[in-house]
Amino acid sequence: MATVRDISLAAAINIFSAFIFLILFAILRLQPINDRVYFPKWSFVTKFVNCDFKSYLRFLSWMPEAIKMPELELIDHAGLDSAVYIRIYLLGLKIFVPFMVFALCILVPFNCGGRSLEDLKDVTFSDIDKLQYQMWHLDQRGLTYFTLFIIILPDTLPVLGPFGNGLCFSFWTFYVLYKEYKVIAFMRLRFLASERRRPDQFTVLVRNVPPDTDETINEHLEHFFCVNHPDHYLTHQVVYNANYLSKLVEKKKKIQNWLDYYEIKYSKNSGKRPSTKTGFLGLCGKRVDALEYYTQKLERVINDPKAIMPVAFVSFKTRWGAAVCAQTQQSSNPTLWLTEWAPEPCDVYWPNLAIPYVKLTIRRLIMAVALFFLTFFFMIPIAFVQSLASLEGIERVVPFLSPIMEIKVIKSFIQGFLPGIALKIFLILLPKILMTMSKIEGFVSLSTLERRSAAKYYLFILVNVFLGSIITGTAFEQLNSLIKQSASNIPITVGVAIPLKATFFITYIMVDGWSGVAAEILRVKPLIMYHLRNTFIVKTEQDRQQAMDPGSLEFASSEPRIQFYFLLGLVYSVVTPILLPFIVIFFGFAYVVFRHQIINVYHQQYESGAAFWPDVHRRILYAMIISQILLMGLMTSKKASDSTPLLLVLPILTVWFHVLCKTRFEPAFVKFPLQDAMVRDTLERATDPAFNLKAYLHEAYIHPVFKNDNIEQPAAMDEEESNPLVRTRRSSHNTASGPVKHGFEFGS
Amino acid sequence: MATVRDISLAAAINIFSAFIFLILFAILRLQPINDRVYFPKWSFVTKFVNCDFKSYLRFLSWMPEAIKMPELELIDHAGLDSAVYIRIYLLGLKIFVPFMVFALCILVPFNCGGRSLEDLKDVTFSDIDKLQYQMWHLDQRGLTYFTLFIIILPDTLPVLGPFGNGLCFSFWTFYVLYKEYKVIAFMRLRFLASERRRPDQFTVLVRNVPPDTDETINEHLEHFFCVNHPDHYLTHQVVYNANYLSKLVEKKKKIQNWLDYYEIKYSKNSGKRPSTKTGFLGLCGKRVDALEYYTQKLERVINDPKAIMPVAFVSFKTRWGAAVCAQTQQSSNPTLWLTEWAPEPCDVYWPNLAIPYVKLTIRRLIMAVALFFLTFFFMIPIAFVQSLASLEGIERVVPFLSPIMEIKVIKSFIQGFLPGIALKIFLILLPKILMTMSKIEGFVSLSTLERRSAAKYYLFILVNVFLGSIITGTAFEQLNSLIKQSASNIPITVGVAIPLKATFFITYIMVDGWSGVAAEILRVKPLIMYHLRNTFIVKTEQDRQQAMDPGSLEFASSEPRIQFYFLLGLVYSVVTPILLPFIVIFFGFAYVVFRHQIINVYHQQYESGAAFWPDVHRRILYAMIISQILLMGLMTSKKASDSTPLLLVLPILTVWFHVLCKTRFEPAFVKFPLQDAMVRDTLERATDPAFNLKAYLHEAYIHPVFKNDNIEQPAAMDEEESNPLVRTRRSSHNTASGPVKHGFEFGS
Repeated sequence: MATVRDISLAAAINIFSAFIFLILFAILRLQPINDRVYFPKWSFVTKFVNCDFKSYLRFLSWMPEAIKMPELELIDHAGLDSAVYIRIYLLGLKIFVPFMVFALCILVPFNCGGRSLEDLKDVTFSDIDKLQYQMWHLDQRGLTYFTLFIIILPDTLPVLGPFGNGLCFSFWTFYVLYKEYKVIAFMRLRFLASERRRPDQFTVLVRNVPPDTDETINEHLEHFFCVNHPDHYLTHQVVYNANYLSKLVEKKKKIQNWLDYYEIKYSKNSGKRPSTKTGFLGLCGKRVDALEYYTQKLERVINDPKAIMPVAFVSFKTRWGAAVCAQTQQSSNPTLWLTEWAPEPCDVYWPNLAIPYVKLTIRRLIMAVALFFLTFFFMIPIAFVQSLASLEGIERVVPFLSPIMEIKVIKSFIQGFLPGIALKIFLILLPKILMTMSKIEGFVSLSTLERRSAAKYYLFILVNVFLGSIITGTAFEQLNSLIKQSASNIPITVGVAIPLKATFFITYIMVDGWSGVAAEILRVKPLIMYHLRNTFIVKTEQDRQQAMDPGSLEFASSEPRIQFYFLLGLVYSVVTPILLPFIVIFFGFAYVVFRHQIINVYHQQYESGAAFWPDVHRRILYAMIISQILLMGLMTSKKASDSTPLLLVLPILTVWFHVLCKTRFEPAFVKFPLQDAMVRDTLERATDPAFNLKAYLHEAYIHPVFKNDNIEQPAAMDEEESNPLVRTRRSSHNTASGPVKHGFEFGS
Repeated sequence: MATVRDISLAAAINIFSAFIFLILFAILRLQPINDRVYFPKWSFVTKFVNCDFKSYLRFLSWMPEAIKMPELELIDHAGLDSAVYIRIYLLGLKIFVPFMVFALCILVPFNCGGRSLEDLKDVTFSDIDKLQYQMWHLDQRGLTYFTLFIIILPDTLPVLGPFGNGLCFSFWTFYVLYKEYKVIAFMRLRFLASERRRPDQFTVLVRNVPPDTDETINEHLEHFFCVNHPDHYLTHQVVYNANYLSKLVEKKKKIQNWLDYYEIKYSKNSGKRPSTKTGFLGLCGKRVDALEYYTQKLERVINDPKAIMPVAFVSFKTRWGAAVCAQTQQSSNPTLWLTEWAPEPCDVYWPNLAIPYVKLTIRRLIMAVALFFLTFFFMIPIAFVQSLASLEGIERVVPFLSPIMEIKVIKSFIQGFLPGIALKIFLILLPKILMTMSKIEGFVSLSTLERRSAAKYYLFILVNVFLGSIITGTAFEQLNSLIKQSASNIPITVGVAIPLKATFFITYIMVDGWSGVAAEILRVKPLIMYHLRNTFIVKTEQDRQQAMDPGSLEFASSEPRIQFYFLLGLVYSVVTPILLPFIVIFFGFAYVVFRHQIINVYHQQYESGAAFWPDVHRRILYAMIISQILLMGLMTSKKASDSTPLLLVLPILTVWFHVLCKTRFEPAFVKFPLQDAMVRDTLERATDPAFNLKAYLHEAYIHPVFKNDNIEQPAAMDEEESNPLVRTRRSSHNTASGPVKHGFEFGS
């Protein structure tokens, strides 16, 4: 068992390293040359070194600055996603600070009374309990004072003690979670209501448009929505196959070049029309009119049915119409005409739009099985690589290297470093692997992909970091031993092991939490990368802008890590509350650091309006249920097994609380109330009656490949509708009206 | 262990009793006097005794008659619910007949080869296996021929045998289930599309209308839907508090009487207006004009805000409008303005409409806990009653009866009969208890209530009949022993016990299935009740009609019982296929009997359009998963434990199949495609453009208490809308236009 001395040493090392990071940051951030690294969101000055030495003295001055910005301004500045994200840290403080205060307050009487653990113990503890009791604590002599009534109570008041504590803590957590969910649902609704006009408010993503023998997909879409949403349908935009698309654009450019070439040729010697041959490279085959031939060919490419997917973004005249279409079933076959609210244009993950619906269920089955194996058996390939990376393994594969291997430095390097590196690389790659798995599952927006990856990562951390640290051995061995055990023994096994691991987790919190967060603010990797690029590659201001990647919050990997601290806090709050101050410091420090980062650095790719909160909420409740079951296991192993049935009430209450919150708040994150849509529609009609929505939406959901390309989109057919502001394309003879007009002006 | 002789005897007894029932039925049904009992759906002749003796000879002639009616006609005649219900029996045949044929076909080679079990066994079985193997079978000597390769294979081909069989059987079940789901989804859609106009097609049930300080609920509803569904809203009908309602109607009648009394008094001596006092019984208090006073009082009662609940049936102009409203969220607060598709008027369960939404979550939590205790601890109160009902218990409570108790007949009666009666009464009451629990949970339609009760009853049967028969002891003892066991041991314990119980279940099938179904067709209870009533009470033809309750299918209690046979069949199909013929006979016999019953007898209270099928489907899949897990347990206990991981594939596949079917077919049962709604709307507009929908819907969702009462409903406010067919109430001065007109005519 680690003594207090060990813990103090670890704490000192980590506090020192965090301090070093902070001082370095204080110095570096004041250098204007680093502004692009530390303040990419703000405008820049041109000095290179800061010589105002006074400013160095206030080296923690960024902290109050980071906290000062009011929340509403923060939402304006960084978006709701980021503002809500840092509220997760705040939520941690709200839950655990009262826990900690409660624990410390109860401590004082025991301390002041001068009664040592031994006195107390002799009163109620049997010999077995004595042993266990000693193990529960970090170190009997050193941490006597920290021994809590929360642990003593189960023995003095065997039934009500842990139950009362569990109930208190659970109810406090319920209260805080409920309030937070309410606030964030309100923030989301206010944010959505106050947002300016956005294309996704009017647009629905339609998938699995069934093929029709008589009509093209474009016509079929048009007819279907004109019939079934007659008063609301405005326009649509079919989706092109991303894989096919690049080839298409290439081909089109080449043909365009040929067309241009022949047009010029024709205009030069206008008497004779140019001709070409249809065969290979224009050298053989039938001789045809070149101009006509290439014009036809170009048209054929644009209308190539292979390039058009049975997927479209359908836009409506009103938000009401879009809300209705997104929430209803269109066809009696529920696998056709699937509608869902379109993601923001920059949130769309284009490659997945082309996946047919039937394939999705199979993909998800395969990925679920793969996730199970990844979580429980990931050690098998790594152990294999490790065995290859050992001295013997290398010598067997490349025997001629063996003389070099005998050198002591290299030998110790291989023995000490190589085996670990496979695991390390795997852990670094893990978020990417999980993201790839989510992509295979076929979700169509980046925000959903991140949320699904986060769920997978959470499972991995829960099984391999939490359970893996408590029950040593690989996850598979654990799984095997757990299955072989009695159902009621599992929580006991884990529950008993938990107090023993408190020191390990304290060290973990300090290394991963404290120093990790301090390293985050220093941004070592972007700092080095930027200066390297700046020195060697950058030529223009444009280049310099691109040399700096401001980064983003990376929800998929960072949220599960926070969840791990919630899990630790909830599990240990009743068992070993000495862990709480460490967690509280982590949450406080991380809150300030990440608030600073989202104000000054990060740039979010999309804005989902805090759509991830139900996930965050749910995972905290999972952690609660785990902590409650482990508490039951722990209590059963003690004399206090009478209280176990009472403790059963806690998980039931938690599940019920989950259902309550789900029905009460989750719809705000997944549904689109008609009342709000109608209010905004009415307001907009009143304030901006002449707005041309169709023109506004025309290019909103165009594939990024087309963005800088002037390829002609197949025109929607309802162009006949009178549109008072722009001349329709048909009347302007297929050319943009602006330039033509100017041409006439100059000509006349 | 039961021998073949035991089983044969039981079979003989049950076949004989079933035969007796059938012959009795054949005789009784031919008596015209019983027509009301056996053919309540058809018109009646007046003879009392059938003397055409030839007809008695064809005593099974009803069977082909029952099968002859084609399904489409059956749907027309008895409704889709009933037609789909008997398809459950057909589904049983479809699944188990091939199982049985497969098992019997494999048997033949073993029989013809003349090899006895002993020969086979010696080849591969160890001694332990031999013992177990013997136990697996009903009786070693008697049933040697029935020993199946399905049991032998696991030992000869330890890995692939059970896996292959499980896979075959599972895939066949998947195939049948998928096809059946598809057919029934199609039948439902066709049924819904071909239905004539019905009020619920246009109506949405709106709950939790928020209170408004300025407006009454009526006005608030009107405004909300006029604003948010401007093009579609037609009218609405608020719901009155059922408890308050009877009082209200009473009060109104009394006041109406007073008003009539004073009006007559006034018309007699027209000079002097009658007056009354406001105090107790009109004897004290201020003297006021009686006519005015009672008119005011009547109005106050009708508009009493306490009587109006924040619930309404809102009707729309089109099916499209109703489909949109039913499937979307109205308000940003998801607990307000809750919309769901309205049940059929005769399917509405009125008392539950008044339950506020917030209370529902609490009620459901309490009922979930209650269901858990009812399922696992129901034996405790019954054991208590049983202890009271014992000899000693009675003697202790009523000591003066002890001399009587000593009489041998009474003594044996008390000892043999009384202890069982408490359990029997409980089991008879159980469906009613479960229905009450469902009602407390607050579902608003009878069909939902029945479905929920069926789910609860299924759980009860699964735990107490299935597991309770396999692991003897009370459910609580089982639960305790299961929890204390290792997680992987539970399926082994149960799996090993299963083959031992085959004889018990065979007897159960014969008693409950064969004789029970034969008793069902005889309708003993309705027969006796009808003749008793007919003899003693009935005076008019009207009375006679009411004396006969044709009954209905009672989905809530009969569906879980069928499910139990599916469970038995699936569990035993691989282990002891000798059970299969018994189950197949049950399904076949029950199919014919119930087809006869729904054609000739039952009268369904409501028509839900086979909305229960997803439940039926899901529960068969539960049974599959249970059977697969038990097979795993059984195989682990044998030498063939290597095949267990392979068998894990089966439950995973089953879960995936469930997800597949859910996404593919379930929407047809819970959602309302806009396309279909639009088609029907368009069709109706074309064929019947002058139809007055508002008049049609006016009284559709009126509370049954009001049905025969001419109480004035608060008028909806959009009466201004021009309605070409009926004169609006306002223009007719708040009295029905008919009588007034006539009065004028007579007067002029």
